Order: sequence, then C-alpha cells, then structure tokens
Amino acid sequence: MANQLLSGKKGIIFGALDENSIAWKTAERVFEEGGQFVLTNAPIAMRMGKINELAEKTNSIVIPADATSEEDLAKLVEQATEHLGGKLDFVLHSIGMSVNVRKGRAYTDEKYDFTAKGWDVSALSFHKVMQSLYKADAMNEWGSIVALTYMAAQRTFPDYNDMADNKAYLESVARSFGYFFGKEKKVRVNTISQSPTPTTAGQGVKGFDAFINYAEKMSPLGNATAAECADYTVSLFSDLTRKVTMQNLFHDAVSPIQE
Amino acid sequence: MANQLLSGKKGIIFGALDENSIAWKTAERVFEEGGQFVLTNAPIAMRMGKINELAEKTNSIVIPADATSEEDLAKLVEQATEHLGGKLDFVLHSIGMSVNVRKGRAYTDEKYDFTAKGWDVSALSFHKVMQSLYKADAMNEWGSIVALTYMAAQRTFPDYNDMADNKAYLESVARSFGYFFGKEKKVRVNTISQSPTPTTAGQGVKGFDAFINYAEKMSPLGNATAAECADYTVSLFSDLTRKVTMQNLFHDAVSPIQE
Amino acid sequence: MANQLLSGKKGIIFGALDENSIAWKTAERVFEEGGQFVLTNAPIAMRMGKINELAEKTNSIVIPADATSEEDLAKLVEQATEHLGGKLDFVLHSIGMSVNVRKGRAYTDEKYDFTAKGWDVSALSFHKVMQSLYKADAMNEWGSIVALTYMAAQRTFPDYNDMADNKAYLESVARSFGYFFGKEKKVRVNTISQSPTPTTAGQGVKGFDAFINYAEKMSPLGNATAAECADYTVSLFSDLTRKVTMQNLFHDAVSPIQE
Amino acid sequence: MANQLLSGKKGIIFGALDENSIAWKTAERVFEEGGQFVLTNAPIAMRMGKINELAEKTNSIVIPADATSEEDLAKLVEQATEHLGGKLDFVLHSIGMSVNVRKGRAYTDEKYDFTAKGWDVSALSFHKVMQSLYKADAMNEWGSIVALTYMAAQRTFPDYNDMADNKAYLESVARSFGYFFGKEKKVRVNTISQSPTPTTAGQGVKGFDAFINYAEKMSPLGNATAAECADYTVSLFSDLTRKVTMQNLFHDAVSPIQE
Repeated sequence: MANQLLSGKKGIIFGALDENSIAWKTAERVFEEGGQFVLTNAPIAMRMGKINELAEKTNSIVIPADATSEEDLAKLVEQATEHLGGKLDFVLHSIGMSVNVRKGRAYTDEKYDFTAKGWDVSALSFHKVMQSLYKADAMNEWGSIVALTYMAAQRTFPDYNDMADNKAYLESVARSFGYFFGKEKKVRVNTISQSPTPTTAGQGVKGFDAFINYAEKMSPLGNATAAECADYTVSLFSDLTRKVTMQNLFHDAVSPIQE
Repeated sequence: MANQLLSGKKGIIFGALDENSIAWKTAERVFEEGGQFVLTNAPIAMRMGKINELAEKTNSIVIPADATSEEDLAKLVEQATEHLGGKLDFVLHSIGMSVNVRKGRAYTDEKYDFTAKGWDVSALSFHKVMQSLYKADAMNEWGSIVALTYMAAQRTFPDYNDMADNKAYLESVARSFGYFFGKEKKVRVNTISQSPTPTTAGQGVKGFDAFINYAEKMSPLGNATAAECADYTVSLFSDLTRKVTMQNLFHDAVSPIQE
Repeated sequence: MANQLLSGKKGIIFGALDENSIAWKTAERVFEEGGQFVLTNAPIAMRMGKINELAEKTNSIVIPADATSEEDLAKLVEQATEHLGGKLDFVLHSIGMSVNVRKGRAYTDEKYDFTAKGWDVSALSFHKVMQSLYKADAMNEWGSIVALTYMAAQRTFPDYNDMADNKAYLESVARSFGYFFGKEKKVRVNTISQSPTPTTAGQGVKGFDAFINYAEKMSPLGNATAAECADYTVSLFSDLTRKVTMQNLFHDAVSPIQE
Repeated sequence: MANQLLSGKKGIIFGALDENSIAWKTAERVFEEGGQFVLTNAPIAMRMGKINELAEKTNSIVIPADATSEEDLAKLVEQATEHLGGKLDFVLHSIGMSVNVRKGRAYTDEKYDFTAKGWDVSALSFHKVMQSLYKADAMNEWGSIVALTYMAAQRTFPDYNDMADNKAYLESVARSFGYFFGKEKKVRVNTISQSPTPTTAGQGVKGFDAFINYAEKMSPLGNATAAECADYTVSLFSDLTRKVTMQNLFHDAVSPIQE
C-alpha cells in the first residue's frame, strides 16, 4: 500500500527508538508515501536505539534534541527546515516516560521530583515542540501535528500511574495549542489514542502483557498494531483530513466496549 | 488529489440528491480514487434530484430503495453485489429528515407520528441498512461503513429539534452494530460528525444561515465543506484506518471551542 | 438519614413495580424526606406489581397511565396536580423495556416492530412525559426531572441489545428538552446512569448476573444499589442542585475504569 | 435551607480568600449543615484575605499551608485531625493560579518556569493533598473529596491559557487517585466543573466579564453562583452521594449548549 499520499511533504518525527517503536513504523510508512523528514530523539535515547539504521532506510538525517529543552528544539527546527529546504507539513510527537513507573513508585506514593520530570518529558514537551514551531513560523498552512496518547487519560488503568495524568495534560495541550495554530497558521493538531502496543517502552509498564491480551480479546477487531498506527498517522498527515483538528482520535478497539 | 486509494473497492452510497449533497461529493471522490459503487436514494428523493447525472459521471448505476423498508434494502444489497461482482468494501449512509422540522412543530410541541417517521428515516434506517448487509453477509472483511451525523447529538442547538435525538440514536447504532460487525465480520462502523453544511437538506433548518456563519467565525480552520467531508470519508474507506471503529469522529471545527 | 430535604415538594414517580424497583426505593426515600407524590405505572405493570402496598406506606395514591399515551399522560398530570394541590417539583422516569430482548432476538436480527415498541416505551415516553408537563405548565420553577439510564448508551455491552440505543435517545431527550424546560420554566432535567441493579426488570437481561458480579469486582466502591440510587435522586430533587441540568450523571463505579 | 446534612462530619477547606470565594461560601454552608472544619490557605494568600473573619463565623481555626509543600500538608493533616478529634469526612480543594496569565504571557509564548509553577499550584497540589491524606490514613470510610475545575479542560476558551491544561491534569488526578482511594479506603473523589464565577481570582482572567455575560445569556438557568456551587458541594459531601466517584460534574449551564 503506497499511494504517494505524502508526496512533497516535509516533517519531523520524534521518538523512534527501535523497530518496535510506533515512530519507527511511521517513519517507514511516511517514506513509502513520499514524505521527507528529519528524525530526532533525546541524546540518551539515541545511544540505546538504532535510529541511524532507520535514517539510512528512509533517506533521512538524525538531529538529536532533548524535547524538554527550548534551546535544543529551536536548533532542531532551524536545522530541519534548512535541511529539508522549507517549512514543515507534518510533525509526530511520540514521547513519554514516567520516572515513578521506572522506579516502581506507586501512584499513591509518588516522588514529586519524578512526577515533575515525567510531566516535562511526556506532556509539556508537546507544548515546547509546538511553541518552537510556532515562534519560528516553521509550519506550512494545512500542516498536521500529531501526538500519541493513551485511553488512560479518560479511564483508569491502575498500573499506568502518573502517565494517565501526563496524557490528560498532553491531550489538553493539543486542544489549546490547536486553537491558536489553527486560527493563526491554518495548522491542525490532534492526538491518536493508541491501543496498548508492545513497544520497547510499553513493555516497561507493570501488568502490560496481561493488559494487552485482555484488550486483544475484548476488541472486536483486535488491538491496533504499531504498523496500523503508522497508517492512521499517514491519513492524518495527508490532505484527506485537513479540517480534522483539536481531536483525540481513538485507535483502540477497546475504548467503546464496556466489559 | 487522486491516489487510487480505493482501487478495487466496491460499495453503496446512500443519499446523493444534488451537487450540494455530501453523498454526491463523496461519490465523485470515491470514483476519483478508483472505487466502484451503486448509488441509491428513496424513490421520492430521486424524483427531486439529479442522481442519474451523477451515475453517468461516476460510471455507476442507480438502484432506488426506501431505506426504511427491509424488503427494498434486501433487494438493493442483492442487486448491488450482483452488479459489482462481489461483496462490498464500503457503505455511506447520508440520510436524515425530520417531519417535525418540515412542518414547523416546536420541540416542545412534537407530533409523535412525525417523530416516529423521522426516527425511522434518520436513525433506525442505519440499523436496517446494516442488518440487511449483515444477514446477506455482503461485506468483505475490513470493509468500512460510515454514517453522517451532527454535534447536536452531544450539545443542544435549539432549532435542530428532534434531529438531535435521532442523531444520538444513530451514533449509538454505530457503536452497537459496530461491535457485532467487528467481531463477526471484521467490518468497521463509524460516524462523521460533520460541520453544518449548506446542503439542500441542511438549508431547510430554521436559523441555519446564522448558525453556519457563527460556526465559520468560531472555528479556527473554518467550517468543513462537503468536499472536505468527502475527503475524510475516503480516508475512512481506505486501508489506512482499518482499526478505527465504533467512533464518532468530529469533522467540525467548532466542537472543541467553548465560546 | 432523613433531613426533610424535600419538605413541601410534590411530584410524580413513574415505574415502581415491586420492592426491588429503583422507583420503589426512591418513593420511600422521598417520603422520608417530606416529599408528597403520586405513583404511576402502566396498567399492565400494575397488575404484576404491588404498587398499592407502596402507596399505603408512603401516603400516596396511584394513578395508572400508559407513558406512551398522550391522553393518559394529560389525565395523569391533571389529576396529580389536582390531588397534590398545586404544581409539581419533581418527576422520576424509571421506565424501560425491550421487546427484542424479551423475545430473545439478537441485535443483528431485530424485528423492527419490536424495536419501535421498545423505543416508544423506553425513550420517547420521556419526551411525552415532559411535553405533557410542559404543555400543562405543571412544573414549579426550580423543579427537577430525572430519568434513569445506563452506560450502554456510551459503551457497548453486547447483551443490552437495542436498549443501548433507546438509552442514547433518552439521554438526548434530557438535553434537548432540558434546554427548553430550563429557559422557559426554570426546570432542570438530568439522567442518572445507574449501575447494573438487580431489579426484577434488570434480571431479565441475558448475562446479567455475570455482568453485575464483574461490575462489583471492578468498581472501587462496589455497585451502587437501588437504595443508593434513591439517595442520589433525592439530592437531585433537592434545592442543593438547582443549577445542575442537561447532564448525564454516572452513578456507576465502573464507568471510569478501563479494565 | 439547613437540614443538618453534614452533622458530625469533619473536614478541611482549602482556598477561602474572601467572601467572593467559592471556598468561603462552601465553608459557610458546611457550617450551617452541621459540619466542622479547618480552614487553610497559602500563607501569602492569607495575608491578602480575610480568612480569620470566616473562621470566627464558622467556629473554625485556620492552619496555613502551602499546598505544594509535602511538609506543610503533612503538618496540616496532622494538626487538623488532632484539632477535630478524629479522621476527616470531607475535603475541598479550591486552588488555582497561572503565572503565565498573571504576567500576561500568551499561550503561544509561555515561559516554562511560570508554567511549571502554575501546574504545581493548580494541579499537582491536588495529588499532594490526597497523597498526604492517604499516607496519614486521615480519611474516614465514605469520605468525600472535591476539587473545583472548569470546562476549559474539555473545550477551548482562548484566554484561559495554561489553566486549561492544569485543569485537565487536575481532573485526571481525581480519576486516578479516586481509583485507589475508593478501592483501599472507600473514599470518593470528584471534581465540580463550575460556571465562570466572579471570584476575586476569576476576575483576573482577561475577557472574563464578556465571557461571564455570554455564559449568563446562553445558559437556560443562568450561571451557577458561588453560593449554588457551595450547595452542590454540600450534596457531594453528604451521604446522599456515597457511590458517586471519579466523576467530573458540570455545574455550568453552558456546557451542553452548542451555540
């Protein structure tokens, strides 16, 4: 399936770590559809990942950036637009991490330095990315910005811990910034609320395997895979969805099921 | 913009009346993308419309059917699959009509025969269409069924009258039938909650012009047009969205705005 | 717990069948809190129930009425206001029945006469009740109208069948009529989305016991009982909630839980 | 209206500044209903307010605490339970402040130190309050915790700035912590999404007057006042609502209106 849907479009993809990453699959699909992009990730994540391999496959370059650093983001935006030879049409934000989860702190026993760090990385970073793009006037009209989120923002999955709250903040940022990006620059901003996905990051969540099996069993169509999420993201980057904005789009066949 | 996204796909499109209809625009776009289809509308609506003109342009045929008649729908499904040479991949339901609105009855002074008729045409017909397809086993796996709805199902727009309640029922039918269609046939079912659109039908609603202007002014990206709704529907018929199901998808730039 | 919260308030309570009914428990609690009311139910339901026993305990009278009959409802409103000596302050609608469920028809094999009957009884009856009250100008300012509903209107519980769609319609009627009842008469209209409750009616739903046990296990506080629903309804009839309107209020400890 | 609904109940009320405060009105109403409580506010806010006057009227004491300080909160919980002679039955969190708003920064030009401070004060403080109560095991079974929020968490009101995102986080914390507080301690946690209210704090928001007038005009019942919010909170602190938890409850007659 490749229809050159994104031919001539340029963008930045945050968060590809390895071939299990949704961002990795998205990069591959965007490339198939004719899009050009810069890959980025935090310097520390890049050491763990194989992002250069992906860059080679997709004829892209890698610009490291800490998505919590305004300075790094400003440089990234400047270098990416320069490298790509113009403004951007699409951006994917696929970034999330809870220190409380990593350190095994219960939700009722949060360490607030950890909470603040996780919020900055997982939620505020989306605002920082958009503010960097907005201030640099780096998006073309009818551009599309997508961030990945999870249904825990609406319903409680106990082991998801403070990531639930971070995702709620992230989804609100999509609406709030989407208003201004729409009105001033004709750019749309949405979140995809993706099925639990066996990424390398996702697998760190306690009880993840049990949950993903449960979701698979409950969902009429089965869980959405990372590759299917990449497809959905392609549709949101394409011109087919130019008036879809400020929405949280469930790509999770469990969300409408009660039991 | 034509990428042969629907190449080889077959379907039925309900509700094209004239070139202002969303269903009309959808038929044109599906044709551009390589899809084949049968057009249908109620016999009475067809006398008022110019559907044959559309059939000619899109290399399709017209099969009249009253979408409230199980018998008509069974025949339609049989003849459409025969004509198209196989099972269906997509169906668009774009049907709605309130007798209370037409007759100028206030919401607090409904005539219940009118209410029942409007409910049958606007809401139950979607169940009837899907039950006909389901019983005839007429959908291919990974097929996509879309109905058009309106935000009045969530928020009150006083002049929308009993159509608000009909749309709430319709959206519930999408979820309920979507569950079974997903589980048993791997078919997805969604609704698009479209901006107020100056179709010939929409223009019959009192206060429509004031409302559409207000929506245009409030929405960061402007109202979604019928043509843009057709684009969005193409994305939902395509393989890019195979795991999106049982969702009500806002295509209405006012929905997330408060004021 | 009795604080004379409803002292001096008058109303109508629909749907008390036996001591398992939510409406029965509500009548008892409203009586304890000093409210006066008329009980009503469909003539056929009354033959099966023990409503006269309840009337005796709560110093009320019973006026039979078919809630799908405008004529019956007009008489009920007239006789109730006459009996109570003035306009009404509260109304409870606790009515629901699916013929498809009773007859064992699957959701994908509905008989549409059954569907229409169930919709009339379960959903449209709420509009009919309110239109009767509205036309007779039978509600006092700051009166409160409550209907009972169920989360299946939002999320799919396969065995709930067409009642899911009926409840979605009912909730929409609450919003739509709530707008006019608020603006013109200062009356509020809400729905309570109640836990699965082992009423005599509820027990007719296939898979009910398994479901109620599941809900009990998942919910942090356990299922809400009929008596607790009566308490919540008292709060909504009281002056403590005069600006709560057009809301669907979950009283169901499962709704916010994901798994 | 005083029915001794909260007789014997004990609690803490955060955020009373002056007689325009919702927390102030709530304290007065809770006192009328027989509840006993400790008042608290940030030391800096107390210098600006007249909280001692309120303490005198309501026979309560004031314990200053910075709601972002775990240490202050631990002391507050300890001293309050000691003063009141037992565990708590209710807590009101009415705290919010955006430095970006105060300093006139646009949403697209946030200063992230300001953002982090506002998030800590307005959103994370609710987690900190609950974690302090939870760790000290300071809540009685069937206790009730309420925080105030605003519809900007769902829909965009441009001038509300980063408070929208803070409120989204706050509402998520209510759900997330509500799960554990319910399961482990039988305590419920909810948010009230209150109308725009002319408090001293609210009046600091740009465009506030225009907005409040608009809301008044649109809402069928008029805006909910601070006194009415106090009534609603009383109902949520009372035993009438013991199974209502993890909900965001709109007390805002505009939320269901489209236009």
